[in-house]
Amino acid sequence: MKYVDLNCDMGESFGAYSLGRDAEILAHVTSANIACGFHAGDASTMRKTVKLALEHGVGIGAHPGLQDLIGFGRRKMDISPQEAYDIVVYQIGALWGFVRSEGGKLQHVKAHGELYNMAALNAGLAEAIAEAVYKVDPELILLGLAGSELVTAGKKAGLRTASEVFSDRTYQSNGSLTPRRQPDAMITDEQESVKQVIRMVNEGKILSRQNEDVSIQADTICIHGDGLHALEFAQTIHTSLKQAGIIVQSIGTTMSGKSS
Amino acid sequence: MKYVDLNCDMGESFGAYSLGRDAEILAHVTSANIACGFHAGDASTMRKTVKLALEHGVGIGAHPGLQDLIGFGRRKMDISPQEAYDIVVYQIGALWGFVRSEGGKLQHVKAHGELYNMAALNAGLAEAIAEAVYKVDPELILLGLAGSELVTAGKKAGLRTASEVFSDRTYQSNGSLTPRRQPDAMITDEQESVKQVIRMVNEGKILSRQNEDVSIQADTICIHGDGLHALEFAQTIHTSLKQAGIIVQSIGTTMSGKSS
Amino acid sequence: MKYVDLNCDMGESFGAYSLGRDAEILAHVTSANIACGFHAGDASTMRKTVKLALEHGVGIGAHPGLQDLIGFGRRKMDISPQEAYDIVVYQIGALWGFVRSEGGKLQHVKAHGELYNMAALNAGLAEAIAEAVYKVDPELILLGLAGSELVTAGKKAGLRTASEVFSDRTYQSNGSLTPRRQPDAMITDEQESVKQVIRMVNEGKILSRQNEDVSIQADTICIHGDGLHALEFAQTIHTSLKQAGIIVQSIGTTMSGKSS
Amino acid sequence: MKYVDLNCDMGESFGAYSLGRDAEILAHVTSANIACGFHAGDASTMRKTVKLALEHGVGIGAHPGLQDLIGFGRRKMDISPQEAYDIVVYQIGALWGFVRSEGGKLQHVKAHGELYNMAALNAGLAEAIAEAVYKVDPELILLGLAGSELVTAGKKAGLRTASEVFSDRTYQSNGSLTPRRQPDAMITDEQESVKQVIRMVNEGKILSRQNEDVSIQADTICIHGDGLHALEFAQTIHTSLKQAGIIVQSIGTTMSGKSS
Repeated sequence: MKYVDLNCDMGESFGAYSLGRDAEILAHVTSANIACGFHAGDASTMRKTVKLALEHGVGIGAHPGLQDLIGFGRRKMDISPQEAYDIVVYQIGALWGFVRSEGGKLQHVKAHGELYNMAALNAGLAEAIAEAVYKVDPELILLGLAGSELVTAGKKAGLRTASEVFSDRTYQSNGSLTPRRQPDAMITDEQESVKQVIRMVNEGKILSRQNEDVSIQADTICIHGDGLHALEFAQTIHTSLKQAGIIVQSIGTTMSGKSS
Repeated sequence: MKYVDLNCDMGESFGAYSLGRDAEILAHVTSANIACGFHAGDASTMRKTVKLALEHGVGIGAHPGLQDLIGFGRRKMDISPQEAYDIVVYQIGALWGFVRSEGGKLQHVKAHGELYNMAALNAGLAEAIAEAVYKVDPELILLGLAGSELVTAGKKAGLRTASEVFSDRTYQSNGSLTPRRQPDAMITDEQESVKQVIRMVNEGKILSRQNEDVSIQADTICIHGDGLHALEFAQTIHTSLKQAGIIVQSIGTTMSGKSS
Repeated sequence: MKYVDLNCDMGESFGAYSLGRDAEILAHVTSANIACGFHAGDASTMRKTVKLALEHGVGIGAHPGLQDLIGFGRRKMDISPQEAYDIVVYQIGALWGFVRSEGGKLQHVKAHGELYNMAALNAGLAEAIAEAVYKVDPELILLGLAGSELVTAGKKAGLRTASEVFSDRTYQSNGSLTPRRQPDAMITDEQESVKQVIRMVNEGKILSRQNEDVSIQADTICIHGDGLHALEFAQTIHTSLKQAGIIVQSIGTTMSGKSS
Repeated sequence: MKYVDLNCDMGESFGAYSLGRDAEILAHVTSANIACGFHAGDASTMRKTVKLALEHGVGIGAHPGLQDLIGFGRRKMDISPQEAYDIVVYQIGALWGFVRSEGGKLQHVKAHGELYNMAALNAGLAEAIAEAVYKVDPELILLGLAGSELVTAGKKAGLRTASEVFSDRTYQSNGSLTPRRQPDAMITDEQESVKQVIRMVNEGKILSRQNEDVSIQADTICIHGDGLHALEFAQTIHTSLKQAGIIVQSIGTTMSGKSS
């Protein structure tokens, strides 16, 4: 039997500013990455989003980001491993406060935006983040880009890790994502996107844009919550995976050996 | 046997900005209220301060404040009980992250500055804060001004509470502090200050500035970490209490029935 | 001949967060109050909004607010007159940078949200704000609630002032707005709203909810940029005022003795 | 006759956090770079610092930095030229508000920390900053590292530029500063430091650490306001320059053809 998780970023509203269609997307995913107030989100949004996620029975993850609200955590910042460690501990803790007070359990941690990107390539940052997660709670699952330094660091630290793949991106023969600035980086055809995802989960393989078969670990698929067709696509991918005989459930459920 | 705790605010540095003499004052107090990044403090400062507090064996408390860094949480803000609840959950959680990752245990929560002042008088805010503390962890001790709404709300919520007294302030016959704008609000004579504190702990009484004896609960004494003579006075008060036969230890130690 | 200005808050987006339909509403108003980065807005949004306002030929105003992004400047904060002065100078200056770099001219200053409300009632804050505006540029027009302390302080400081009225609010016999918590505070009927505004401009009078005629100065009308029917209502009120023979133009144009 | 300016960063306090000895250092420098609230400083500090600078008759400069208060603007951030333009316009404007309200005149702009470093090497950022300065006020002097892209961009934009040199750093044969991580990057001997500076001003030359004579433009010398011996060294360098027959005055004075 094959299992896969569908994860989506959420809780990205801030004060008077509303972002995303969290309530609707929650019907189609199995794990929620909740912003922790650094790149997006605020205390009230965190409480509401945790509550919503619990109501939908999805796995709850902390989604720590760079301390750059104005840049939404998407601008590369030259932070030290120690700084990465500190901001990750802080943000996991903050979200834990709401998960605990709402009677839930924190399932995973997924770094956001440029922190995610930097930790995929930079072993020092990756190890700092893995250590932060481990020291706050060794039971947490660390989610990272399939084949990234972050997944390697997580395993080394003694954490359970979940490898993330993208349904709307093409891959290179070395297993990395085709950079967005290249013309064929994105997959715009929905059927192609679905087929790629099913093959990644079922066979652990993907056809690179150089036309070579590459091995890839696909524990969880990144679902976008914004964009015009986000909801429809989330639903399509969820249904198609099921129709292909794949069990769609949260990584926490799969890793605990339980089935939903 | 009489017991009392000496608590001090700390971890108030921020980025390049250094504030307070935490390492030195820790030698003289038994509980530390650590800023959580809203009115002061940041992730790195929190980690260092938690570590320092653990090394000194003092009780660790979260010190949540208003989200007003520029005003140091000292400006009254018209926040709703729900907002108070949310910022308190967030900040306790954030500090918990560091306490947990450093291998410690969170002992108490003390609201900072104007959040403390507002919660002393406003039952709605007090109940929201008490609920936040309880829902994050019912084992936490809620520290509040002796005789305040916050202590009342804490008891009502089912929390253990610690009543705080001030060594350098005079009291009114209704048990409240003499407002600072009044001429005899502050006690500047060190001996008088020490005598008042010892009597509060030993007899549970204080002579109001209207010359009446007033009952007061003195579980913990607020020690200031800034000012020219802060360190000397902290030492003096600690020594004087001991000489008066009072056991100076953290509220967590006292409330767990253990003795240091 | 009667003149009136239609003003609207804008430039309230922040980073990844989009708010308001500035480009569309600009077609219907004659003055724009542009957020300056404290309660809303950011440097990039300010540049874009100033450019947009210049393209539409509307009067440009700084819209300084309390330093409370998470609360959108709508929460009462106990700031001193000196603090009010400082944050107003800072924010006017920041917006001036963009007005100057885009080749425009700053027309007016309107305080935002709770800063506006506090300055309407508190003479100390009102005088501090008026002084800030005057010292940055005595040619600026200070916009304030009709009959408020802010308008009084502006005149006293030597500034030109513009009295603001609301089309969707009822008034009391003492000239103040009916508080929102009262049942008949809002006017929901569009025709009634239009009639009230036309009478305020043409006759300088309004019928209070106590059924008494009250004198009111109506130099500028507050137009809301959000809400479902904001655009339609802005258009309706603009058209209706013109049909009633009133010249709708910016306060800067009117006060300089020019006609559009 | 040779002229040189001594500039120092100041106004870096924030809320309850005090930094630097501005009042004292002002006695020894001729230009002040005042933080504008992004990497350090706040509205009240800006007002006080502008006032202090005017009282000492020094040239006033805006000191815009990256929007990273917690990192003091010292962490490299991947901002676009448009973002650099926007934050520079904003910050110059904000400081202009205080300069104007205190009755002074803005003399120059010096980028802070990592924004300064990035603009020294990155032509795109340098041009964006130069354009920002020019469009806010073409009379402003742009201060940049001698030989940097920023100085080149400033000249190209039509601005007057001032080339900055460091008294406590060694230089390479290509005119760049020896990177701090190299062992002989810093000059710790005060006499050597003074000699190097005098030669830079008088002869326009410096002996590189590769023992070659290199041409260098020295319009203004960076004086550090922090550190144990900052004040003494500022005084020493000021006195030594005068004794060497060099006129120490602000760049604004020199560039306007006047003499102090």
